[in-house]
Amino acid sequence: MAVYVKNAWYVAAWSSEVGRDLFKRRIMDEPIVFFRKNDGTPVALTDRCPHKLLPLSMGHLVGDNVQCGYHGLEFDCSGACTHVPGQEKIPATAKVHSYPLVERYDAIWIWMGDPAKADPDQIHKVLKFGEPGWAVVGGGYQNHKGNYLNIAENLTDPAHTTYVHLRTIGNPATSEVPVKVDQGPGYVVASRWSNNVPPPPIDKKNGNFAGNVDRCQYYNFFAPCVSRVDVVTMDAGQEHTEELMNKGLRVYSYKFLTPETETATHFFWMQIRNFRVDDVKLQEDLFAGLNQTYAEDNVIVTAVQREQDATGVLQQTWLAIDAAPSRVRKMIVDMATAEQA
Amino acid sequence: MAVYVKNAWYVAAWSSEVGRDLFKRRIMDEPIVFFRKNDGTPVALTDRCPHKLLPLSMGHLVGDNVQCGYHGLEFDCSGACTHVPGQEKIPATAKVHSYPLVERYDAIWIWMGDPAKADPDQIHKVLKFGEPGWAVVGGGYQNHKGNYLNIAENLTDPAHTTYVHLRTIGNPATSEVPVKVDQGPGYVVASRWSNNVPPPPIDKKNGNFAGNVDRCQYYNFFAPCVSRVDVVTMDAGQEHTEELMNKGLRVYSYKFLTPETETATHFFWMQIRNFRVDDVKLQEDLFAGLNQTYAEDNVIVTAVQREQDATGVLQQTWLAIDAAPSRVRKMIVDMATAEQA
Amino acid sequence: MAVYVKNAWYVAAWSSEVGRDLFKRRIMDEPIVFFRKNDGTPVALTDRCPHKLLPLSMGHLVGDNVQCGYHGLEFDCSGACTHVPGQEKIPATAKVHSYPLVERYDAIWIWMGDPAKADPDQIHKVLKFGEPGWAVVGGGYQNHKGNYLNIAENLTDPAHTTYVHLRTIGNPATSEVPVKVDQGPGYVVASRWSNNVPPPPIDKKNGNFAGNVDRCQYYNFFAPCVSRVDVVTMDAGQEHTEELMNKGLRVYSYKFLTPETETATHFFWMQIRNFRVDDVKLQEDLFAGLNQTYAEDNVIVTAVQREQDATGVLQQTWLAIDAAPSRVRKMIVDMATAEQA
Repeated sequence: MAVYVKNAWYVAAWSSEVGRDLFKRRIMDEPIVFFRKNDGTPVALTDRCPHKLLPLSMGHLVGDNVQCGYHGLEFDCSGACTHVPGQEKIPATAKVHSYPLVERYDAIWIWMGDPAKADPDQIHKVLKFGEPGWAVVGGGYQNHKGNYLNIAENLTDPAHTTYVHLRTIGNPATSEVPVKVDQGPGYVVASRWSNNVPPPPIDKKNGNFAGNVDRCQYYNFFAPCVSRVDVVTMDAGQEHTEELMNKGLRVYSYKFLTPETETATHFFWMQIRNFRVDDVKLQEDLFAGLNQTYAEDNVIVTAVQREQDATGVLQQTWLAIDAAPSRVRKMIVDMATAEQA
Repeated sequence: MAVYVKNAWYVAAWSSEVGRDLFKRRIMDEPIVFFRKNDGTPVALTDRCPHKLLPLSMGHLVGDNVQCGYHGLEFDCSGACTHVPGQEKIPATAKVHSYPLVERYDAIWIWMGDPAKADPDQIHKVLKFGEPGWAVVGGGYQNHKGNYLNIAENLTDPAHTTYVHLRTIGNPATSEVPVKVDQGPGYVVASRWSNNVPPPPIDKKNGNFAGNVDRCQYYNFFAPCVSRVDVVTMDAGQEHTEELMNKGLRVYSYKFLTPETETATHFFWMQIRNFRVDDVKLQEDLFAGLNQTYAEDNVIVTAVQREQDATGVLQQTWLAIDAAPSRVRKMIVDMATAEQA
Repeated sequence: MAVYVKNAWYVAAWSSEVGRDLFKRRIMDEPIVFFRKNDGTPVALTDRCPHKLLPLSMGHLVGDNVQCGYHGLEFDCSGACTHVPGQEKIPATAKVHSYPLVERYDAIWIWMGDPAKADPDQIHKVLKFGEPGWAVVGGGYQNHKGNYLNIAENLTDPAHTTYVHLRTIGNPATSEVPVKVDQGPGYVVASRWSNNVPPPPIDKKNGNFAGNVDRCQYYNFFAPCVSRVDVVTMDAGQEHTEELMNKGLRVYSYKFLTPETETATHFFWMQIRNFRVDDVKLQEDLFAGLNQTYAEDNVIVTAVQREQDATGVLQQTWLAIDAAPSRVRKMIVDMATAEQA
């Protein structure tokens, strides 16, 4: 049985993906059709007419209703059937599920579980989004052909960057730096600081450092579906306070994981930074570079999934570097188990 | 277990498809090879050599025998093995099934069940075929990726035309006209009359009507595999007798459904009409238009099959418009059940 | 359960296929990565890192070690893990299987079973390979989409050549010549002699025969994986001794079968002959012709596998020509059964 945490908010789509054309996406094995009402409000319904099961996304919008492309049944935004051609009385079974949605951070967030529990305050808080002095590289999407738990592990695993991202963000020098793992309610973080080291050329260019720097990476995972990697470069010798870190170069790299099926994941990403915020060329370069980096992860994740499917096991040996990833997996699996109980 | 009525005549191929080249087609999950004897008689044998199971369609004709392409075994039109290279005595197990065939209406009809019951008189009677004053648009074939019962339902379902065939034969005006359902031994018919209405432009062009017309559609299904849709346009105010209907514009639109597998169907079609019978351009236009219409059905049927496979159910709500389709399904399923008992 | 004889030597690759790039091939359902050490010795390891299961073939060589492309674990040629980044102690479970290999006859032979039993003296002896007066057409490889037992049967089945290889080596005249079957420990041979017959044009061109000839074909199979077809054409009327046969035209046609999966086989082939040994053009023509011939077999083998999968049986009737093939199958199946017991 699939391990999904349903009572949580997931990114279903970027705001720009959903409009007045019917848009379909499968989430947690459920087919869903998305569209916007004439007033712009996004709507998500089961993408399957209860009559003959045709995907509603093969039909049309009629005002704010979806009309099925087979027999013209119409469903409103609550999922209720409002019209059956040639028939006055509408059967009680003629309805589809309407998923709670919230639009925030340029994304449409969906609640896959019990609608009564869908509290918008529980949507993950994206730091610095839209604040002055910070720039967003957003709208990144890839379909990764692996179970989302493998991807969650990968995103709290600093050890892989040296080998998987050789051609992009990999850095052989850091592969032996020890990682500290912390855990709290609903999150795990793996972090490492390299203190009093010369700044790498790219940081020097962006940050104008006089001497040595302290650099850190925090690999945060907020269960069940948000990864945030924080990278800071600051003048060496200062205290590592939030305020002083914000005066250095600082990047928040977000990934939002939404299970498509047990073996495929919608991988949404955005990056937020506090330097060269008006540099359009940099913006484009960052998008292309990050897209390439995550494509490298997809190659790995796809191959690992194939081998897991072939062997029926997740791994055959455990290492020290598994500390954070294993905790992330356990945290999510525990949540799903508790929810299903 | 697949629901097939075996003791019945099905269209296996158009006459033009079968000649002196070996032709293969799968029917009810059985691989079959077709060819014609030198005298033109069509033959259908199991397309699988009993020796090493190679499809006989990968071999050659030697006179009126099929020679296997692996070891040269030869089978005659009765399915008996007549020659094994290097061996005098032919084992009793060296034989294949020979299917009863009848050639009629430019088609080759096959009997998939007990050959002793194969009575050519039971072949469905195609009205007006080859009669003076009537023209045939024939030879239509599509492979529909859905179970044949879904297609049989679709063919007795006037309600879908408005929505599925918007770009071809759909007519919003008729979507609310009530449908009358009748049933007799082995058939179901759904019909609707629109009386004393102005003729649509296309009928006006074909029929030269002075005033209003009566129009009807009859969606007949003859179990297990023949659909005939009759369309008549006649001067308003007359009695609806066969004779008077034949004096109006009249079309018989035939579809012959032959299950390929549980999820695919050979969809043969022809259309017969009593107007502009010598108009070659009309003939071509009708073929193209109908081919497009049935391709629209295939899109629906394919999507519905996929959702039925995913959910394990046929539908989740039932409507008034299901009256005729549901009866057709039940009639065929009952026939299959009775036969298997 | 798959029928494989594991304690035997199989051709895993041609020598030319394996170098300093990681090369992957699946054998008996096991993923294997091949490479050469700096001193040229070939190595074969399980192609799956025990940590996160990534295929090692997606990593890199570091000296004579394979480095995993996910987290940089390194494995030496014995399969032992020698380095885990960021960790001193290496877990006992961090290891992969190292397959015994021997390089001989321009091929790399692999032992899939118990390494303790891997005796290089058991590698099949390829006749005349590398001897003066004999030429080798080598390096042939095809992937055949059928179980290797079907292919083994095909290779001891003279009866199919007339029908399958019509366009290449097929000869209608021989289809009725009786075949003699002999069996010894670990081998079966089907043979036929045509004595005192005119030489075919191709032999006349190669052999300069004055009058009639004796011709023979021996279809040898050495369980579990080597086929050798011997063809001799010699002046008629002589004794059929090894010495005199070697003075005629003589060809050894080898195929080495290595199961990839239950339904696919690595088909390696080479041919050795004692005439026109320096003829480069002949060499090229022979390669192209044989490659075409075995591609014809692949078409048959692929279709037969599909029908066996569909029906769940191997054949439905047995013939005299099955004598040798059936013995070959039984011999191999008995070996596999004994080994698994």
